[in-house]
Amino acid sequence: MATDAITPVRALLFDVFGTVVDWRSSLVRHLERFGRERGLEADWPGLADAWRGAYRPSMDRVRRGELAWTVLDDLHRSSLAVLSEERGLGLDGAALDRLALLWRELDPWPDSRPGLTRLRARFTLAPLSNGNVALLVAMAKRAGLEWDTVFGADLFGHYKPDPETYLGACGLLRLRPEQAMLCAAHNLDLAAARALGLRTAFVARPTEHGPGQTADLGAEQDWDVVAGSLEELADRLGA
Amino acid sequence: MATDAITPVRALLFDVFGTVVDWRSSLVRHLERFGRERGLEADWPGLADAWRGAYRPSMDRVRRGELAWTVLDDLHRSSLAVLSEERGLGLDGAALDRLALLWRELDPWPDSRPGLTRLRARFTLAPLSNGNVALLVAMAKRAGLEWDTVFGADLFGHYKPDPETYLGACGLLRLRPEQAMLCAAHNLDLAAARALGLRTAFVARPTEHGPGQTADLGAEQDWDVVAGSLEELADRLGA
Repeated sequence: MATDAITPVRALLFDVFGTVVDWRSSLVRHLERFGRERGLEADWPGLADAWRGAYRPSMDRVRRGELAWTVLDDLHRSSLAVLSEERGLGLDGAALDRLALLWRELDPWPDSRPGLTRLRARFTLAPLSNGNVALLVAMAKRAGLEWDTVFGADLFGHYKPDPETYLGACGLLRLRPEQAMLCAAHNLDLAAARALGLRTAFVARPTEHGPGQTADLGAEQDWDVVAGSLEELADRLGA
Repeated sequence: MATDAITPVRALLFDVFGTVVDWRSSLVRHLERFGRERGLEADWPGLADAWRGAYRPSMDRVRRGELAWTVLDDLHRSSLAVLSEERGLGLDGAALDRLALLWRELDPWPDSRPGLTRLRARFTLAPLSNGNVALLVAMAKRAGLEWDTVFGADLFGHYKPDPETYLGACGLLRLRPEQAMLCAAHNLDLAAARALGLRTAFVARPTEHGPGQTADLGAEQDWDVVAGSLEELADRLGA
Protein backbone atom coordinates (compact mmCIF):
# COMPACT_ATOMS: atom_id res chain seq x y z
CA MET A 1 0.00 0.00 0.00
CA ALA A 2 1.14 3.53 -0.60
CA THR A 3 2.45 5.41 2.40
CA ASP A 4 -0.11 8.18 2.16
CA ALA A 5 -2.92 5.63 2.11
CA ILE A 6 -2.01 4.60 5.65
CA THR A 7 -1.83 8.09 7.06
CA PRO A 8 -5.24 7.90 8.71
CA VAL A 9 -4.45 4.70 10.61
CA ARG A 10 -3.97 5.61 14.26
CA ALA A 11 -4.22 2.28 16.06
CA LEU A 12 -3.09 -1.25 15.34
CA LEU A 13 -5.21 -3.99 16.90
CA PHE A 14 -3.57 -7.39 17.16
CA ASP A 15 -4.92 -10.85 17.16
CA VAL A 16 -2.75 -12.60 19.76
CA PHE A 17 -2.94 -16.43 19.66
CA GLY A 18 -0.93 -17.40 16.62
CA THR A 19 -0.25 -13.85 15.44
CA VAL A 20 1.83 -12.51 18.35
CA VAL A 21 2.52 -15.67 20.37
CA ASP A 22 3.44 -19.18 19.29
CA TRP A 23 0.82 -21.03 21.31
CA ARG A 24 1.60 -24.52 20.00
CA SER A 25 5.32 -24.77 20.78
CA SER A 26 4.79 -23.05 24.12
CA LEU A 27 1.92 -25.32 25.17
CA VAL A 28 3.68 -28.50 24.10
CA ARG A 29 6.77 -27.51 26.08
CA HIS A 30 4.74 -26.63 29.20
CA LEU A 31 2.67 -29.83 28.95
CA GLU A 32 5.73 -32.02 28.47
CA ARG A 33 7.30 -30.47 31.56
CA PHE A 34 4.11 -31.08 33.50
CA GLY A 35 4.15 -34.71 32.35
CA ARG A 36 7.73 -35.16 33.48
CA GLU A 37 6.96 -33.64 36.89
CA ARG A 38 4.01 -35.97 37.36
CA GLY A 39 5.52 -39.04 35.74
CA LEU A 40 2.59 -38.93 33.33
CA GLU A 41 3.01 -40.16 29.76
CA ALA A 42 0.74 -38.83 27.07
CA ASP A 43 0.69 -37.52 23.52
CA TRP A 44 1.31 -33.93 24.62
CA PRO A 45 1.50 -32.40 21.11
CA GLY A 46 -1.74 -34.21 20.29
CA LEU A 47 -3.32 -32.85 23.47
CA ALA A 48 -2.19 -29.31 22.60
CA ASP A 49 -3.74 -29.63 19.13
CA ALA A 50 -6.98 -31.11 20.46
CA TRP A 51 -7.17 -28.40 23.14
CA ARG A 52 -6.75 -25.70 20.53
CA GLY A 53 -9.27 -27.59 18.39
CA ALA A 54 -11.84 -27.12 21.15
CA TYR A 55 -11.25 -23.35 21.21
CA ARG A 56 -13.52 -22.26 18.36
CA PRO A 57 -16.38 -24.69 19.17
CA SER A 58 -16.34 -23.57 22.84
CA MET A 59 -16.57 -19.90 21.86
CA ASP A 60 -19.23 -20.65 19.28
CA ARG A 61 -21.42 -22.10 22.03
CA VAL A 62 -21.19 -18.70 23.74
CA ARG A 63 -21.72 -16.85 20.46
CA ARG A 64 -24.87 -18.86 19.73
CA GLY A 65 -26.20 -18.22 23.22
CA GLU A 66 -26.06 -21.89 24.29
CA LEU A 67 -23.68 -20.92 27.08
CA ALA A 68 -23.80 -17.72 29.14
CA TRP A 69 -20.83 -15.39 28.81
CA THR A 70 -17.74 -17.30 29.91
CA VAL A 71 -14.19 -15.95 29.72
CA LEU A 72 -11.53 -17.81 27.79
CA ASP A 73 -9.61 -18.85 30.93
CA ASP A 74 -12.71 -20.81 31.96
CA LEU A 75 -13.46 -22.19 28.49
CA HIS A 76 -9.89 -23.49 28.40
CA ARG A 77 -10.39 -25.25 31.72
CA SER A 78 -13.67 -26.85 30.68
CA SER A 79 -12.25 -28.05 27.36
CA LEU A 80 -9.26 -29.58 29.09
CA ALA A 81 -11.49 -31.37 31.60
CA VAL A 82 -13.32 -33.05 28.71
CA LEU A 83 -10.06 -33.98 26.98
CA SER A 84 -8.63 -35.37 30.22
CA GLU A 85 -11.67 -37.60 30.56
CA GLU A 86 -11.60 -38.70 26.91
CA ARG A 87 -7.89 -39.45 27.01
CA GLY A 88 -7.81 -40.99 30.47
CA LEU A 89 -5.31 -38.43 31.77
CA GLY A 90 -6.94 -38.32 35.20
CA LEU A 91 -6.22 -34.61 35.77
CA ASP A 92 -7.67 -33.45 39.08
CA GLY A 93 -9.17 -30.03 39.81
CA ALA A 94 -5.89 -28.51 40.95
CA ALA A 95 -4.13 -29.74 37.81
CA LEU A 96 -6.90 -28.33 35.62
CA ASP A 97 -6.69 -24.99 37.46
CA ARG A 98 -2.97 -24.87 36.88
CA LEU A 99 -2.92 -26.06 33.27
CA ALA A 100 -5.79 -23.81 32.17
CA LEU A 101 -3.54 -20.85 32.89
CA LEU A 102 -0.78 -22.12 30.59
CA TRP A 103 -2.41 -19.96 27.91
CA ARG A 104 -1.13 -16.99 29.91
CA GLU A 105 2.43 -18.33 29.52
CA LEU A 106 2.85 -18.43 25.78
CA ASP A 107 6.04 -17.16 24.20
CA PRO A 108 6.08 -14.52 21.47
CA TRP A 109 7.40 -15.28 18.01
CA PRO A 110 11.01 -14.01 17.78
CA ASP A 111 9.97 -10.95 15.74
CA SER A 112 7.02 -9.95 17.94
CA ARG A 113 8.74 -7.91 20.64
CA PRO A 114 11.08 -5.97 18.33
CA GLY A 115 8.27 -5.39 15.82
CA LEU A 116 5.85 -4.13 18.45
CA THR A 117 8.47 -1.85 19.95
CA ARG A 118 9.00 -0.16 16.59
CA LEU A 119 5.30 0.03 15.80
CA ARG A 120 4.44 1.51 19.20
CA ALA A 121 6.53 4.59 18.48
CA ARG A 122 4.13 5.47 15.67
CA PHE A 123 0.79 3.86 16.51
CA THR A 124 -1.42 3.06 19.46
CA LEU A 125 -1.09 -0.69 19.99
CA ALA A 126 -3.54 -3.03 21.64
CA PRO A 127 -4.37 -6.71 21.47
CA LEU A 128 -7.91 -7.40 20.25
CA SER A 129 -8.16 -10.98 21.33
CA ASN A 130 -10.62 -13.62 22.38
CA GLY A 131 -8.51 -13.90 25.52
CA ASN A 132 -9.84 -12.15 28.61
CA VAL A 133 -8.17 -9.05 30.03
CA ALA A 134 -6.52 -10.88 32.95
CA LEU A 135 -5.09 -13.52 30.61
CA LEU A 136 -3.74 -10.91 28.19
CA VAL A 137 -2.27 -8.72 30.93
CA ALA A 138 -0.50 -11.68 32.54
CA MET A 139 0.78 -12.88 29.17
CA ALA A 140 2.07 -9.43 28.20
CA LYS A 141 3.83 -8.95 31.52
CA ARG A 142 5.56 -12.34 31.31
CA ALA A 143 6.41 -12.06 27.60
CA GLY A 144 7.43 -8.39 27.62
CA LEU A 145 4.77 -7.26 25.16
CA GLU A 146 4.32 -3.51 25.55
CA TRP A 147 0.75 -2.57 24.73
CA ASP A 148 -0.86 0.84 25.17
CA THR A 149 -3.98 -0.85 26.49
CA VAL A 150 -5.54 -4.30 26.39
CA PHE A 151 -8.82 -5.23 24.69
CA GLY A 152 -10.04 -8.63 25.86
CA ALA A 153 -13.29 -10.20 24.72
CA ASP A 154 -14.70 -9.79 28.23
CA LEU A 155 -14.82 -6.01 27.70
CA PHE A 156 -17.42 -6.59 25.02
CA GLY A 157 -19.12 -9.78 26.20
CA HIS A 158 -18.56 -11.10 22.69
CA TYR A 159 -16.03 -13.23 20.88
CA LYS A 160 -14.53 -12.46 17.50
CA PRO A 161 -15.72 -12.48 14.80
CA ASP A 162 -18.76 -10.80 16.38
CA PRO A 163 -18.83 -7.15 15.23
CA GLU A 164 -19.13 -5.92 18.82
CA THR A 165 -15.45 -6.73 19.36
CA TYR A 166 -13.95 -4.81 16.42
CA LEU A 167 -16.36 -1.88 16.70
CA GLY A 168 -16.10 -1.90 20.47
CA ALA A 169 -12.33 -1.44 20.36
CA CYS A 170 -12.65 1.39 17.81
CA GLY A 171 -15.31 3.01 19.96
CA LEU A 172 -13.21 2.90 23.14
CA LEU A 173 -10.34 4.51 21.21
CA ARG A 174 -12.82 7.00 19.69
CA LEU A 175 -11.63 6.12 16.22
CA ARG A 176 -13.58 5.51 13.05
CA PRO A 177 -13.10 1.92 11.80
CA GLU A 178 -10.85 3.07 8.96
CA GLN A 179 -8.49 4.64 11.53
CA ALA A 180 -7.78 1.19 12.99
CA MET A 181 -5.99 -1.76 11.43
CA LEU A 182 -6.47 -5.35 12.50
CA CYS A 183 -3.22 -7.32 12.29
CA ALA A 184 -3.82 -11.06 12.24
CA ALA A 185 -2.54 -14.37 10.93
CA HIS A 186 -6.09 -15.52 10.17
CA ASN A 187 -7.97 -14.63 7.02
CA LEU A 188 -11.42 -15.02 8.62
CA ASP A 189 -10.57 -12.55 11.39
CA LEU A 190 -9.39 -10.03 8.80
CA ALA A 191 -12.47 -10.57 6.64
CA ALA A 192 -14.74 -9.76 9.59
CA ALA A 193 -12.76 -6.62 10.36
CA ARG A 194 -12.71 -5.48 6.72
CA ALA A 195 -16.48 -5.94 6.43
CA LEU A 196 -16.83 -3.35 9.21
CA GLY A 197 -14.45 -0.86 7.61
CA LEU A 198 -11.23 -1.55 9.48
CA ARG A 199 -7.92 -1.68 7.65
CA THR A 200 -6.23 -5.07 7.52
CA ALA A 201 -2.74 -6.55 7.79
CA PHE A 202 -2.09 -10.24 7.24
CA VAL A 203 0.90 -11.57 9.16
CA ALA A 204 1.85 -15.00 7.82
CA ARG A 205 2.45 -17.61 10.52
CA PRO A 206 2.74 -20.80 8.42
CA THR A 207 3.92 -22.93 11.37
CA GLU A 208 1.35 -21.78 13.91
CA HIS A 209 -0.29 -25.20 13.82
CA GLY A 210 2.97 -27.09 13.47
CA PRO A 211 4.57 -28.69 10.43
CA GLY A 212 1.31 -29.96 8.90
CA GLN A 213 -0.51 -26.62 8.78
CA THR A 214 -3.00 -26.40 5.92
CA ALA A 215 -4.99 -23.19 6.59
CA ASP A 216 -3.90 -19.55 6.59
CA LEU A 217 -0.68 -20.30 4.75
CA GLY A 218 -1.12 -17.12 2.76
CA ALA A 219 -3.31 -14.09 2.19
CA GLU A 220 -6.71 -15.00 0.74
CA GLN A 221 -7.75 -11.43 -0.05
CA ASP A 222 -5.87 -8.32 -1.04
CA TRP A 223 -5.37 -7.18 2.52
CA ASP A 224 -4.02 -3.66 2.94
CA VAL A 225 -0.69 -5.05 4.08
CA VAL A 226 0.77 -8.56 3.85
CA ALA A 227 3.87 -9.28 5.92
CA GLY A 228 5.90 -12.25 7.07
CA SER A 229 6.61 -10.91 10.55
CA LEU A 230 5.88 -7.97 12.83
CA GLU A 231 9.24 -6.49 11.91
CA GLU A 232 8.26 -6.61 8.25
CA LEU A 233 4.93 -5.05 9.24
CA ALA A 234 6.88 -2.22 10.86
CA ASP A 235 8.90 -1.81 7.67
CA ARG A 236 5.73 -1.68 5.58
CA LEU A 237 4.07 0.87 7.83
CA GLY A 238 7.13 3.10 7.98
CA ALA A 239 7.60 2.58 11.70
CA MET B 1 1.97 -1.59 57.12
CA ALA B 2 4.00 -4.73 57.60
CA THR B 3 5.54 -6.22 54.50
CA ASP B 4 3.75 -9.53 54.87
CA ALA B 5 0.42 -7.76 55.13
CA ILE B 6 0.82 -6.54 51.57
CA THR B 7 1.77 -9.91 50.10
CA PRO B 8 -1.66 -10.61 48.65
CA VAL B 9 -1.80 -7.33 46.71
CA ARG B 10 -1.35 -8.14 43.03
CA ALA B 11 -2.51 -4.98 41.29
CA LEU B 12 -2.25 -1.27 41.96
CA LEU B 13 -5.07 0.85 40.55
CA PHE B 14 -4.33 4.55 40.23
CA ASP B 15 -6.50 7.57 40.33
CA VAL B 16 -5.00 9.77 37.63
CA PHE B 17 -6.12 13.43 37.75
CA GLY B 18 -4.24 14.90 40.69
CA THR B 19 -2.62 11.64 41.79
CA VAL B 20 -0.46 10.85 38.75
CA VAL B 21 -0.71 14.05 36.72
CA ASP B 22 -0.59 17.70 37.76
CA TRP B 23 -3.72 18.81 35.93
CA ARG B 24 -3.75 22.40 37.22
CA SER B 25 -0.27 23.55 36.20
CA SER B 26 -0.56 21.74 32.89
CA LEU B 27 -3.97 23.21 32.05
CA VAL B 28 -2.98 26.73 33.03
CA ARG B 29 0.13 26.54 30.85
CA HIS B 30 -1.80 25.15 27.86
CA LEU B 31 -4.59 27.73 28.26
CA GLU B 32 -2.15 30.61 28.56
CA ARG B 33 -0.43 29.50 25.37
CA PHE B 34 -3.80 29.27 23.63
CA GLY B 35 -4.59 32.79 24.81
CA ARG B 36 -1.30 34.13 23.47
CA GLU B 37 -1.86 32.42 20.11
CA ARG B 38 -5.35 33.93 19.83
CA GLY B 39 -4.51 37.27 21.37
CA LEU B 40 -7.19 36.48 23.95
CA GLU B 41 -6.87 37.82 27.49
CA ALA B 42 -8.56 35.99 30.32
CA ASP B 43 -8.05 34.73 33.85
CA TRP B 44 -6.63 31.40 32.70
CA PRO B 45 -5.86 30.00 36.18
CA GLY B 46 -9.39 30.96 37.19
CA LEU B 47 -10.77 29.21 34.13
CA ALA B 48 -8.77 26.07 34.89
CA ASP B 49 -10.12 26.03 38.45
CA ALA B 50 -13.70 26.65 37.33
CA TRP B 51 -13.37 23.95 34.66
CA ARG B 52 -12.15 21.45 37.22
CA GLY B 53 -14.91 22.68 39.51
CA ALA B 54 -17.45 21.59 36.93
CA TYR B 55 -15.96 18.06 36.80
CA ARG B 56 -17.70 16.48 39.77
CA PRO B 57 -21.13 18.12 39.15
CA SER B 58 -21.04 17.02 35.48
CA MET B 59 -20.29 13.41 36.45
CA ASP B 60 -22.88 13.52 39.20
CA ARG B 61 -25.53 14.35 36.59
CA VAL B 62 -24.59 11.08 34.86
CA ARG B 63 -24.42 9.19 38.15
CA ARG B 64 -27.92 10.38 39.09
CA GLY B 65 -29.26 9.39 35.68
CA GLU B 66 -30.12 12.96 34.63
CA LEU B 67 -27.75 12.60 31.69
CA ALA B 68 -27.21 9.44 29.62
CA TRP B 69 -23.72 7.93 29.75
CA THR B 70 -21.28 10.53 28.47
CA VAL B 71 -17.51 10.10 28.42
CA LEU B 72 -15.28 12.59 30.21
CA ASP B 73 -13.88 14.04 26.95
CA ASP B 74 -17.43 15.17 26.13
CA LEU B 75 -18.28 16.35 29.65
CA HIS B 76 -15.13 18.49 29.53
CA ARG B 77 -16.26 20.04 26.27
CA SER B 78 -19.77 20.78 27.52
CA SER B 79 -18.49 22.33 30.74
CA LEU B 80 -16.08 24.54 28.85
CA ALA B 81 -18.83 25.69 26.50
CA VAL B 82 -20.84 26.89 29.50
CA LEU B 83 -17.80 28.62 31.05
CA SER B 84 -16.97 30.30 27.73
CA GLU B 85 -20.48 31.69 27.61
CA GLU B 86 -20.48 32.82 31.25
CA ARG B 87 -17.06 34.46 30.93
CA GLY B 88 -17.58 35.94 27.47
CA LEU B 89 -14.61 34.07 26.00
CA GLY B 90 -16.37 33.52 22.67
CA LEU B 91 -14.79 30.11 22.02
CA ASP B 92 -16.12 28.61 18.81
CA GLY B 93 -16.76 24.92 18.14
CA ALA B 94 -13.29 24.24 16.79
CA ALA B 95 -11.69 25.88 19.83
CA LEU B 96 -13.90 23.87 22.18
CA ASP B 97 -12.97 20.66 20.32
CA ARG B 98 -9.31 21.45 20.67
CA LEU B 99 -9.33 22.66 24.26
CA ALA B 100 -11.48 19.78 25.51
CA LEU B 101 -8.62 17.46 24.63
CA LEU B 102 -6.12 19.40 26.76
CA TRP B 103 -7.00 16.93 29.52
CA ARG B 104 -5.14 14.36 27.45
CA GLU B 105 -2.01 16.53 27.61
CA LEU B 106 -1.39 16.76 31.31
CA ASP B 107 2.10 16.35 32.69
CA PRO B 108 2.95 13.82 35.37
CA TRP B 109 4.26 14.91 38.77
CA PRO B 110 8.07 14.56 38.77
CA ASP B 111 7.96 11.37 40.85
CA SER B 112 5.23 9.65 38.83
CA ARG B 113 7.21 8.08 36.00
CA PRO B 114 10.10 6.80 38.15
CA GLY B 115 7.69 5.56 40.81
CA LEU B 116 5.49 3.71 38.34
CA THR B 117 8.51 2.13 36.66
CA ARG B 118 9.64 0.65 39.97
CA LEU B 119 6.15 -0.43 40.98
CA ARG B 120 5.49 -2.12 37.64
CA ALA B 121 8.32 -4.57 38.19
CA ARG B 122 6.39 -5.99 41.13
CA PHE B 123 2.70 -5.26 40.51
CA THR B 124 0.18 -5.07 37.71
CA LEU B 125 -0.45 -1.35 37.19
CA ALA B 126 -3.52 0.30 35.71
CA PRO B 127 -5.21 3.65 35.97
CA LEU B 128 -8.72 3.46 37.42
CA SER B 129 -9.92 6.86 36.39
CA ASN B 130 -13.01 8.79 35.51
CA GLY B 131 -11.26 9.57 32.25
CA ASN B 132 -12.29 7.51 29.23
CA VAL B 133 -10.01 4.92 27.68
CA ALA B 134 -9.04 7.07 24.68
CA LEU B 135 -8.16 10.00 26.95
CA LEU B 136 -6.07 7.83 29.27
CA VAL B 137 -4.27 6.04 26.42
CA ALA B 138 -3.40 9.33 24.72
CA MET B 139 -2.24 10.84 28.02
CA ALA B 140 -0.07 7.83 28.87
CA LYS B 141 1.53 7.79 25.44
CA ARG B 142 2.39 11.48 25.58
CA ALA B 143 3.51 11.45 29.22
CA GLY B 144 5.41 8.16 29.11
CA LEU B 145 3.26 6.43 31.73
CA GLU B 146 3.72 2.68 31.31
CA TRP B 147 0.55 0.88 32.35
CA ASP B 148 -0.18 -2.81 32.00
CA THR B 149 -3.70 -1.97 30.89
CA VAL B 150 -6.07 0.99 31.10
CA PHE B 151 -9.35 1.10 33.01
CA GLY B 152 -11.45 4.07 31.95
CA ALA B 153 -14.90 4.81 33.30
CA ASP B 154 -16.39 4.02 29.89
CA LEU B 155 -15.53 0.34 30.38
CA PHE B 156 -18.02 0.28 33.23
CA GLY B 157 -20.53 2.94 32.19
CA HIS B 158 -20.09 4.39 35.67
CA TYR B 159 -18.06 7.10 37.34
CA LYS B 160 -16.20 6.75 40.61
CA PRO B 161 -17.20 6.49 43.39
CA ASP B 162 -19.82 4.10 41.98
CA PRO B 163 -18.91 0.55 43.11
CA GLU B 164 -19.11 -0.75 39.52
CA THR B 165 -15.79 0.94 38.75
CA TYR B 166 -13.68 -0.52 41.59
CA LEU B 167 -15.30 -3.95 41.44
CA GLY B 168 -15.30 -3.92 37.64
CA ALA B 169 -11.53 -3.42 37.53
CA CYS B 170 -10.98 -6.21 40.06
CA GLY B 171 -13.30 -8.48 38.08
CA LEU B 172 -11.49 -7.86 34.78
CA LEU B 173 -8.19 -8.69 36.51
CA ARG B 174 -9.89 -11.71 38.16
CA LEU B 175 -8.74 -10.53 41.56
CA ARG B 176 -10.59 -10.40 44.83
CA PRO B 177 -10.93 -6.80 46.09
CA GLU B 178 -8.28 -7.34 48.77
CA GLN B 179 -5.78 -8.28 46.05
CA ALA B 180 -6.04 -4.78 44.58
CA MET B 181 -4.93 -1.47 46.06
CA LEU B 182 -6.34 1.89 45.04
CA CYS B 183 -3.68 4.60 45.05
CA ALA B 184 -5.18 8.09 45.19
CA ALA B 185 -4.67 11.61 46.43
CA HIS B 186 -8.34 11.86 47.43
CA ASN B 187 -9.76 10.56 50.68
CA LEU B 188 -13.27 10.07 49.29
CA ASP B 189 -12.03 7.85 46.46
CA LEU B 190 -10.10 5.72 48.95
CA ALA B 191 -13.08 5.50 51.30
CA ALA B 192 -15.26 4.14 48.50
CA ALA B 193 -12.61 1.56 47.58
CA ARG B 194 -12.05 0.51 51.19
CA ALA B 195 -15.78 0.02 51.72
CA LEU B 196 -15.65 -2.59 48.95
CA GLY B 197 -12.66 -4.41 50.38
CA LEU B 198 -9.82 -2.95 48.32
CA ARG B 199 -6.54 -1.99 49.93
CA THR B 200 -5.75 1.72 49.99
CA ALA B 201 -2.75 4.01 49.52
CA PHE B 202 -3.00 7.75 50.05
CA VAL B 203 -0.55 9.78 47.98
CA ALA B 204 -0.41 13.33 49.29
CA ARG B 205 -0.65 15.99 46.58
CA PRO B 206 -1.02 19.17 48.66
CA THR B 207 -0.59 21.50 45.67
CA GLU B 208 -2.95 19.73 43.26
CA HIS B 209 -5.38 22.65 43.50
CA GLY B 210 -2.65 25.27 43.66
CA PRO B 211 -1.33 27.26 46.60
CA GLY B 212 -4.69 27.69 48.31
CA GLN B 213 -5.64 24.02 48.54
CA THR B 214 -7.81 23.19 51.56
CA ALA B 215 -8.96 19.60 50.99
CA ASP B 216 -7.01 16.34 50.90
CA LEU B 217 -3.97 17.87 52.55
CA GLY B 218 -3.48 14.68 54.51
CA ALA B 219 -4.83 11.22 55.21
CA GLU B 220 -8.24 11.30 56.87
CA GLN B 221 -8.33 7.58 57.69
CA ASP B 222 -5.68 5.02 58.56
CA TRP B 223 -5.13 4.04 54.95
CA ASP B 224 -2.98 0.93 54.43
CA VAL B 225 -0.17 3.10 53.09
CA VAL B 226 0.38 6.86 53.26
CA ALA B 227 3.08 8.30 50.99
CA GLY B 228 4.24 11.68 49.77
CA SER B 229 5.04 10.54 46.23
CA LEU B 230 4.90 7.49 43.97
CA GLU B 231 8.58 6.90 44.68
CA GLU B 232 7.84 6.80 48.39
CA LEU B 233 4.93 4.46 47.60
CA ALA B 234 7.42 2.17 45.81
CA ASP B 235 9.67 2.30 48.88
CA ARG B 236 6.79 1.42 51.18
CA LEU B 237 5.68 -1.49 49.00
CA GLY B 238 9.17 -2.88 48.63
CA ALA B 239 9.25 -2.29 44.88
